Amino acid sequence: MRIAVLGGDGFCGWPVALHLSRHGHDVTVVDSLVRRRTDDELGVESLTPVRPLPERLAAWWEVTGLVVRHVRLDLAREPERLAALLAAERPEAVVHLAEQRAAPYSMRDAAHKRYTVDTNVNATHNLLAALVEVGLDAHVVHLGTMGVYGYETAAVDLPEGYLHVSYPDRTGASIERDVLYPTRPGSVYHLTKSLDQLLFQFYAQNDGLRITDLHQGIVWGTQTPETRLDPRLVNRFDYDGDYGTVLNRFLVQAALGLPLTVHGTGGQTRAFINLEDTVRCVRLAVESGDAVVGGRVRIMNQVAETLRVRDLAAMLHRLLGAEVAHVPNPRAEAAENELEVRTDQLRDLGLEPILLEERLLEESLETARRYAGRVDPARVPATACWNAERRAAAAPAEAGR
Amino acid sequence: MRIAVLGGDGFCGWPVALHLSRHGHDVTVVDSLVRRRTDDELGVESLTPVRPLPERLAAWWEVTGLVVRHVRLDLAREPERLAALLAAERPEAVVHLAEQRAAPYSMRDAAHKRYTVDTNVNATHNLLAALVEVGLDAHVVHLGTMGVYGYETAAVDLPEGYLHVSYPDRTGASIERDVLYPTRPGSVYHLTKSLDQLLFQFYAQNDGLRITDLHQGIVWGTQTPETRLDPRLVNRFDYDGDYGTVLNRFLVQAALGLPLTVHGTGGQTRAFINLEDTVRCVRLAVESGDAVVGGRVRIMNQVAETLRVRDLAAMLHRLLGAEVAHVPNPRAEAAENELEVRTDQLRDLGLEPILLEERLLEESLETARRYAGRVDPARVPATACWNAERRAAAAPAEAGR
Repeated sequence: MRIAVLGGDGFCGWPVALHLSRHGHDVTVVDSLVRRRTDDELGVESLTPVRPLPERLAAWWEVTGLVVRHVRLDLAREPERLAALLAAERPEAVVHLAEQRAAPYSMRDAAHKRYTVDTNVNATHNLLAALVEVGLDAHVVHLGTMGVYGYETAAVDLPEGYLHVSYPDRTGASIERDVLYPTRPGSVYHLTKSLDQLLFQFYAQNDGLRITDLHQGIVWGTQTPETRLDPRLVNRFDYDGDYGTVLNRFLVQAALGLPLTVHGTGGQTRAFINLEDTVRCVRLAVESGDAVVGGRVRIMNQVAETLRVRDLAAMLHRLLGAEVAHVPNPRAEAAENELEVRTDQLRDLGLEPILLEERLLEESLETARRYAGRVDPARVPATACWNAERRAAAAPAEAGR
Repeated sequence: MRIAVLGGDGFCGWPVALHLSRHGHDVTVVDSLVRRRTDDELGVESLTPVRPLPERLAAWWEVTGLVVRHVRLDLAREPERLAALLAAERPEAVVHLAEQRAAPYSMRDAAHKRYTVDTNVNATHNLLAALVEVGLDAHVVHLGTMGVYGYETAAVDLPEGYLHVSYPDRTGASIERDVLYPTRPGSVYHLTKSLDQLLFQFYAQNDGLRITDLHQGIVWGTQTPETRLDPRLVNRFDYDGDYGTVLNRFLVQAALGLPLTVHGTGGQTRAFINLEDTVRCVRLAVESGDAVVGGRVRIMNQVAETLRVRDLAAMLHRLLGAEVAHVPNPRAEAAENELEVRTDQLRDLGLEPILLEERLLEESLETARRYAGRVDPARVPATACWNAERRAAAAPAEAGR
């Protein structure tokens, strides 16, 4: 299948591109390379030594004989070039991962909030408008987030995108209806994924575009069978307070013998998925595109398991001997929440997920410990505060650090 | 009250600014004047001879002794200047009307879709992010649209923004919850107002911003008591296929002795409100801002009555003798729909709406007939088609015109 991977130089995009290439698909990576510039802005770099994209692609060809092309293009800011590319290449599927994807980065200040909204909304909308303009019936596979559901979710097993609700009509009789799950995103980043959902709904309904939205949990793990084939193919590993997710930061802290910094009580339950499963899920979504019709967006939850942050810390203590330290939570969120997630659709397509318990130790040895010498410990703590109240609460801890 | 009116040179914005000024408020108009450039792009002009904004403001001062200032600023594209303005002026209320507001214009082609999404989403988000950045507790009053509800609304009296739904928890017990009315917008323009809703929800919840969203029906009428004070204060009257709403186009057709062009069966039910009520509603919303708290956006339906398009045409036939012609509907929408709307909140604040039946003849004499010599009849038909299917259906009619 001819597939364009938008954002194919990123943490998920790169291994997705290689995985699809290795499975016989004809892959073009479309990426502005902005993620590398963000590292410069933040003064951090990937724990793993990521190579320039041309070197990565040359190595892939050397090792496998497979060609993956790159088109440098800013999806949010070069819509005409995008339309021309789609018209020329006519991909059968478009994997859309080209968005700013860090919640703390999106909450740093007004400029970062604006950058995230402007980039993510326009990236998604430019793609949809271009597909209509070009008249291309490509299946769009987008990476959403579990965060669109918000955290008021204790009492239900989270359905896949749609909630079946009832309400009375004006005679008092009951109306039964599937609606998009009422969204309550917890950061500007998550907000943009909620906005994406409405863009998808409209273009599916008005123009019959075929769209799959994958609501993913927190990805952990760094390498995949494809990125392990050569050191030049190594994937990103972000451990900084903006782009590093909770697990990566814990692994780095454990590798350095530092305590794991748990926000608040650590009672937040999060959904997790291993990177190898992410790339598999995206491929399963792409290859099942014939089942997706216009009119209704297919939404699948891309999650392997859910776990409380403090239980994750305890698992790391058991496996790696790390200590735990509680720090004020910079996020405006509930201190404790439940989370149970339905994942029937991807399991029906064949997903058998990797669990943290099985693979966490190996992940630590493969990346965090191996590259511990590259860590800048000052960059591990999360510093972006969600609002004025959380900023005030964090101030004494900041001052005492 | 110190009030910034964003979009205060527009069709609703101008009479809103004057009305607030006359009611003792200290008004600053913030407007990029883009609406005047759009006229140039479309090759049309307001039926009424609109004066340049400096002349309008000078006339207002001459006639009333009241000062309304103007700051030329592009809300979507000059966020730093906006933040500086808010920090310097510290308005107590911000009336936000600075969005691209025509559904047909938003559906012309990919470039106009992109312009509408980019402009409207960034305009709203820049305002919200700036209020947080500046630390300003100003009450935001935004003009939304009835179109966020979509048209699958036959069976209920549309509530004001929130729908009370129930669904089972995992034990089978019932969860009862107010959710944002499940949105199903019918054009890219309406879509942006649905996106605005999620932006408002987030900033109200995360930062405690105080926000009122007014879901308005189709506005009719041109003048208000304030704009009638002097010919230089005259308001816009758009009758072209992009910016002219159904009623304005009917009035112009009637004034020229042309048949009223009804899309499809004319079975679409629409909500209407007179411009004088619009400006009153905005003032009532602003002056009741103390009742609005962070956490939950106040949403009010700003509607006087609902009417089928063909019944509107019949009313004009009766009052003005106009004939009716049916043409293919360029919009992807249901041929027939019901619409009943709750408007309790604005009525409780004192709104006693003007009805079409009472004032339509006078409106016709005051504007459409008076300025009929300025009409370019070629610009009255709507030409933007909603999707490929509607374009194909419209083609024969286009060719035969």
